[in-house]
Amino acid sequence: DIKELTADAVDVTLEGYAHYMLKEIYEQPHSITNALRGRLDKDNATAKFGGLNLTTQQLRSVERIVLTGCGTSWHSALVGEYLFEELARIPVEVEYASELRYRNPPTDRDTVIFGITQSGETADTLAALREMKRKGHHTLAICNVIGSSIAQEADGGIYLHAGPEIGVASTKAFTSQLTVLSMLALYFGRLRHLSYEAGQRIIAQLEMLPEVIQKTLECHEHVKHIAARYADATNFLYLGRKYNFPTALEGALKLKEISYIHAEGYPAAEMKHGPIALVDEHTPSVFIVPNGTVYDKVLSNLQEVKARGGPVIAIVDHEDPQVANLADEVIMIPQIEDFLQPIVASIPLQLLSYEIALLRGCDVDMPRNLAKSVTVE
Amino acid sequence: DIKELTADAVDVTLEGYAHYMLKEIYEQPHSITNALRGRLDKDNATAKFGGLNLTTQQLRSVERIVLTGCGTSWHSALVGEYLFEELARIPVEVEYASELRYRNPPTDRDTVIFGITQSGETADTLAALREMKRKGHHTLAICNVIGSSIAQEADGGIYLHAGPEIGVASTKAFTSQLTVLSMLALYFGRLRHLSYEAGQRIIAQLEMLPEVIQKTLECHEHVKHIAARYADATNFLYLGRKYNFPTALEGALKLKEISYIHAEGYPAAEMKHGPIALVDEHTPSVFIVPNGTVYDKVLSNLQEVKARGGPVIAIVDHEDPQVANLADEVIMIPQIEDFLQPIVASIPLQLLSYEIALLRGCDVDMPRNLAKSVTVE
Repeated sequence: DIKELTADAVDVTLEGYAHYMLKEIYEQPHSITNALRGRLDKDNATAKFGGLNLTTQQLRSVERIVLTGCGTSWHSALVGEYLFEELARIPVEVEYASELRYRNPPTDRDTVIFGITQSGETADTLAALREMKRKGHHTLAICNVIGSSIAQEADGGIYLHAGPEIGVASTKAFTSQLTVLSMLALYFGRLRHLSYEAGQRIIAQLEMLPEVIQKTLECHEHVKHIAARYADATNFLYLGRKYNFPTALEGALKLKEISYIHAEGYPAAEMKHGPIALVDEHTPSVFIVPNGTVYDKVLSNLQEVKARGGPVIAIVDHEDPQVANLADEVIMIPQIEDFLQPIVASIPLQLLSYEIALLRGCDVDMPRNLAKSVTVE
Repeated sequence: DIKELTADAVDVTLEGYAHYMLKEIYEQPHSITNALRGRLDKDNATAKFGGLNLTTQQLRSVERIVLTGCGTSWHSALVGEYLFEELARIPVEVEYASELRYRNPPTDRDTVIFGITQSGETADTLAALREMKRKGHHTLAICNVIGSSIAQEADGGIYLHAGPEIGVASTKAFTSQLTVLSMLALYFGRLRHLSYEAGQRIIAQLEMLPEVIQKTLECHEHVKHIAARYADATNFLYLGRKYNFPTALEGALKLKEISYIHAEGYPAAEMKHGPIALVDEHTPSVFIVPNGTVYDKVLSNLQEVKARGGPVIAIVDHEDPQVANLADEVIMIPQIEDFLQPIVASIPLQLLSYEIALLRGCDVDMPRNLAKSVTVE
């Protein structure tokens, strides 16, 4: 739709914010509201989407899902795997788009492909989607830019409606991708075994998101103080498990992209299989350790890092004396069910990387070597 | 078998090598010979294993494979995914053992689990295997230590026969794991669509391995010179695609483990989605760029890094003027088909990390913070 393309191309102003990235971080209560709008069907305790272009029967018969993307969108796909597998019990394969397009994996007949890309123009993701479409699979796009190439080429899809994202480091597009994936998992779950009550519970959690994000943003001043203490570090580790393993990867990528600090994410339990060798008094570790089924396990991984003298920044979701006694810094986020924690826990990580990049004098919105949308291989 | 356990417990001497790690690197022509011994069935153009403890009918009916492990063994699993999917056309899911044990993914009926662990005692891998066994799946172990816990608990398995690995950073166990996984992929392939001729071709390649590895070790002096030029770097990137994406991850892990340099591996195409922001004149990138289907693509990723002023160490498998013109350092390895390239390309990466760690005065065999086998969560 040419009109909508034109609308996207208008100038976006900073509206008083110092950088687009900061503006986009603060827009998240609003962008998530837009992602949710009109898509929660309370009467049926499910989600609904206008543009999937597949019949309920076709969607009901999906036996496997492939999620593909690059960079931040690949992190969304990792969260998506956990969401679809837990809420809908559909097995998911996550593929780097650049690998998927060339490696020719075996795929079952009833496999649907989701290509995730903010711009809708990411060359590798487009090519991977085309390859899977050529093989006769249904292909769906999750993208932000209306009328983009992937929106035109996929069989159907879902727009994020996050508004233009100008900062090269993705923030609001990421949390909107996660919101959309959560609704999709709810939808596929309710096509199958998920009960009406479970669907209602998920909807209630989703509806809380904008307010929860607004509340989470209140950590900004505290995060700014923490940033000042660690801005000189040359290495960071980011650690989480289950839903917050991809959160850790994304937190590390943000820091890498805009501050040029070498930050790396890992599933927390992998630390002792090698990366913990990096830990010393100069290497901070950011642990995402909210309540949940793996809380004790992450806490034990946190203790291992402290025992080796590494500074620890912990993200918790309640007054947690155990973590407070161990960690050097504690950031509190509001409570929400674990499948939505990546959306909430990402907010302080975005702010941390923003503040550290500022202190290091980096160009937050236009980091060196990077382009906003990668339209070449 | 108690006798064999005793045999493993005898003192292992350095036999003139400065470190166990170096000795184990140099043992690889021999350890791979041991992994291959008695397992290539030329008459039937397939591989054979004594301890799978499943009937041919059971193995023929396997529809999906889950490979799980931690650290280096997880990297083997990633190569295994590509091997099984290409040679046997069986879809594979790779799982961090620490994630698999708690996240309860949906699994199909005819799914077999391979737990990969050198020691056979890795707590997370054992727990993941037990969880899948409890669910009624066939479980198989790929391990080195005879009589280890996983060897006793799995339904069957394959020993590496690599001999005791003393160095904390795994070297020969990794290449033996890859050798065993290659033979397994051949075996499963020959149960299905792989032709007699294709099986023979794969066997011929496998038989070349010990000699090829012996020849590859000749790069040591050259690698030592390169190490001297980059030993002061604080960050490294390791990049490859397809089969050599896991090679890159493993190369980075080696450097991290024993030199405490922050090294990170990526699929080469992911660079432009964030990590390339790290590239400057002080951050070397190691590119694994032998001939193969993705050669042009990796070369193009290499050019992007050079364009940003990053030093490049390239691993090639032939006289390559294009790479020679771009890269600061070139390491030549012998040619072999792409599915065995990770075994060969790992040799210079092991030597590079060994030499850099030595120059930095690190304890190569007993790096800080790490234990040889991780028997706690």
